[in-house]
Amino acid sequence: MTNFATHLASRLGAEVITPRGAIPARYHHDWTGLDPVEPLALARPRSTEEVAAILSACHAAGIAVVPQGGLTGISGGAHPAADGIVISLERLNQIDAIDTDAGTLTAGAGVVLETAQQAARDAGLLLGIDIGARGSCQLGGVLATNAGGNTVIRYGMARDHVLGLEVVLADGTIVEGMNTMLKNNAGLDLKQLFIGSEGTLGIITRCVLRLHPLPPAKATAFVGCADTDKVIALLRASRAALGPMLSSFEVMWPSFFDFMSQATGLGSPLADPHGAYVIIEATGFDATATRETLEQLFETAFEKGLVEDGVLARSVKEEQALWAVRESPAEYERVLGPVIPFDVGIPIRLMDHAVTTIGAAIKAAYPTARALCYGHIGDSNLHVVVNVPEAGRAQPTHEVKDLVYGLVRDMGGTVSAEHGIGTIKRAYLAHSRSAVEIGLMRGFKGLLDPKGILNPGKSFDGVGAE
Amino acid sequence: MTNFATHLASRLGAEVITPRGAIPARYHHDWTGLDPVEPLALARPRSTEEVAAILSACHAAGIAVVPQGGLTGISGGAHPAADGIVISLERLNQIDAIDTDAGTLTAGAGVVLETAQQAARDAGLLLGIDIGARGSCQLGGVLATNAGGNTVIRYGMARDHVLGLEVVLADGTIVEGMNTMLKNNAGLDLKQLFIGSEGTLGIITRCVLRLHPLPPAKATAFVGCADTDKVIALLRASRAALGPMLSSFEVMWPSFFDFMSQATGLGSPLADPHGAYVIIEATGFDATATRETLEQLFETAFEKGLVEDGVLARSVKEEQALWAVRESPAEYERVLGPVIPFDVGIPIRLMDHAVTTIGAAIKAAYPTARALCYGHIGDSNLHVVVNVPEAGRAQPTHEVKDLVYGLVRDMGGTVSAEHGIGTIKRAYLAHSRSAVEIGLMRGFKGLLDPKGILNPGKSFDGVGAE
Repeated sequence: MTNFATHLASRLGAEVITPRGAIPARYHHDWTGLDPVEPLALARPRSTEEVAAILSACHAAGIAVVPQGGLTGISGGAHPAADGIVISLERLNQIDAIDTDAGTLTAGAGVVLETAQQAARDAGLLLGIDIGARGSCQLGGVLATNAGGNTVIRYGMARDHVLGLEVVLADGTIVEGMNTMLKNNAGLDLKQLFIGSEGTLGIITRCVLRLHPLPPAKATAFVGCADTDKVIALLRASRAALGPMLSSFEVMWPSFFDFMSQATGLGSPLADPHGAYVIIEATGFDATATRETLEQLFETAFEKGLVEDGVLARSVKEEQALWAVRESPAEYERVLGPVIPFDVGIPIRLMDHAVTTIGAAIKAAYPTARALCYGHIGDSNLHVVVNVPEAGRAQPTHEVKDLVYGLVRDMGGTVSAEHGIGTIKRAYLAHSRSAVEIGLMRGFKGLLDPKGILNPGKSFDGVGAE
Repeated sequence: MTNFATHLASRLGAEVITPRGAIPARYHHDWTGLDPVEPLALARPRSTEEVAAILSACHAAGIAVVPQGGLTGISGGAHPAADGIVISLERLNQIDAIDTDAGTLTAGAGVVLETAQQAARDAGLLLGIDIGARGSCQLGGVLATNAGGNTVIRYGMARDHVLGLEVVLADGTIVEGMNTMLKNNAGLDLKQLFIGSEGTLGIITRCVLRLHPLPPAKATAFVGCADTDKVIALLRASRAALGPMLSSFEVMWPSFFDFMSQATGLGSPLADPHGAYVIIEATGFDATATRETLEQLFETAFEKGLVEDGVLARSVKEEQALWAVRESPAEYERVLGPVIPFDVGIPIRLMDHAVTTIGAAIKAAYPTARALCYGHIGDSNLHVVVNVPEAGRAQPTHEVKDLVYGLVRDMGGTVSAEHGIGTIKRAYLAHSRSAVEIGLMRGFKGLLDPKGILNPGKSFDGVGAE
């Protein structure tokens, strides 16, 4: 295998191939927290053709390939294999074009999301994909994991932004699919299979993304509701009143909000505690109309008893203050220590039941545990973050996962709403997908990557085949 | 083969299976205009399980199956095969549920689009899919062809509305994928492969569709522009001013508008002729703001010289009058006789070039020919309708197709923007998809339908394999 790294370096040069022993530590892991692994070699190709040459060589030799982007994934999808190489797409970082007439951005897989967002904004347009890791994550990874985020309710998942995709298959074949047209029904829409495949079916090298008009106006409200049912009624009212102006609808239950607002010292925008807290963000094309529509919604909701209290931001600074606690999860390590995080999907009609049941089940098993609940409720997406204080660094991860994912399965939910399956949720994939579905996934894998070299053991790969 | 129809009838009953000789003429063809063909048998299953039983029997016997919905396709995708059966999904016509909290509609493949639209509207929500054939087309066909329409610029293609899908595979295996959640990243998103597959990979039996808030306000403008470049500048201005309020942007060139407005006697809303005509429709959640934003857009565009003249509808009746010529293609047979229709996609930056070049090439080949151009320009979608007067019923279809599709290929366009490939565009699929892409499509077919019984010879099936 060391021979293979030498062979690869002889074909592509030391500028592209770094052998084991000389690979910087940052490529040994992603943000998941798994034990670092140094791969056989690190490949940092400068072109699609070099990606193809690397894959062709790996395919011939049967060497595993783990694709990496910004390494911000938290499901272990980019975690290296000791007997395989890592291929980082970071050098494919060119924005090739922004077409303001068509509303498209054409870029390499290694472009950092924030760079693409800024380029779109500079052209007077909006790239509607936004996630917390925007400053580090790269477009290839964003698409390979079908990333979500806070604006999915308005702009959809990463998938919904993709018009064209260039992909290199396991054997080095380049699939040119750089379509720029909103409509293209010429046969199967192949790109869809690669989006969200977590590097198991091919490596994304370039993309054409759709851009949206940039809404110049924004208004933000922070409200307290009595319970989850009121929150869901408020969601309906918000959709009806704001239509496509509704750009975020973020719910925080007391388990998250009351605890984090105190533990971080950020405090609450509201005087009293409530049964649930909601951030409603509206974006629009007329500042007065945007603000007034949100105000009107708030007044009507207050009159109808859907909300108990609330504030509207009057400045950007106030707006940031309303988001502060929602954006405090980076403080978990400091205020909680190690946590067991969940990113599950629950049908909306069962959301109240889910929050109650999951919280109660964790408390029953671990009476001192915290189970922080918050989420993008309009997208059916619930985040639960668990910490068992007395367990210290030895959190009962497996036991809590079995418990939570079991409840999610019983409610017909999904074990991954937006973070993907990667390495760490494979054991639970069958909770949310049938044997028939997983069998089809493996069938596609066998067709596209018969030697199984692409990100082996990630996502569905090998699930149910043991 | 007659034995097979008897065998099928013995298993499923005469209520479900109609043998050749007794099959009503409406099942012998779709709207494409191909010569009617009576299939071996007509199956009209009443449940997903009956669909599975029929496919299982056909798979075992190696009998071809052509799925049919509302039969409104115009690419021959639902055209019967004489040596195969037809399976009509029309009896799977139940709307199972509308969830107003989640914003979802769950329904069978046989539900007529207009019925689903009305059910959503009755619940205070909007199904954002709309095509001319709404009164006849069925959801299964709409999804199997990834239908487009006039509101794609706002709500996307049919694909963008699908949250969940139930599909029966060639061998009768049922793939349950009735997801109701906006986010679900648990492995591959299998449904994407079946959407737009034109019945070649599986038969869609049920679906979960996303619903949108129902915008109560609408405003419509009809304007005349000097040329296509001005239209594209107006498109940019409209997107920037209206954002998600822009629900239609329909362009008609003089070849279509001047001719059809006169030939049908409908006349023009404008006094003088122009280089291009545009219908701009805005929908919103505040009547005053919707109307005023459109008025403001029109005034600014007029001042900047983007539009030469225009009118805004002041009533529903006036609004209908502004759409009248755009909706007159049903009159082609009366005013033109037989036509050769095209539904192509052209990158927006080449749209002016495309309209000019295609029109000129047709005139050069057939000096008396008409080439009517119009389209959903914001979606890169151009419709061209050709008639050679002296050819009568023997229109030079092949020659004109070769000519137009050749130009589309040279411009990097697509031979099908929204109508699909079906039977009649197979010879041109390779103009818009590479050999690698078509090879992948055939690979998926081989995996999912190894005996090739599902809609054989439609879309990509068999292309490049001869």
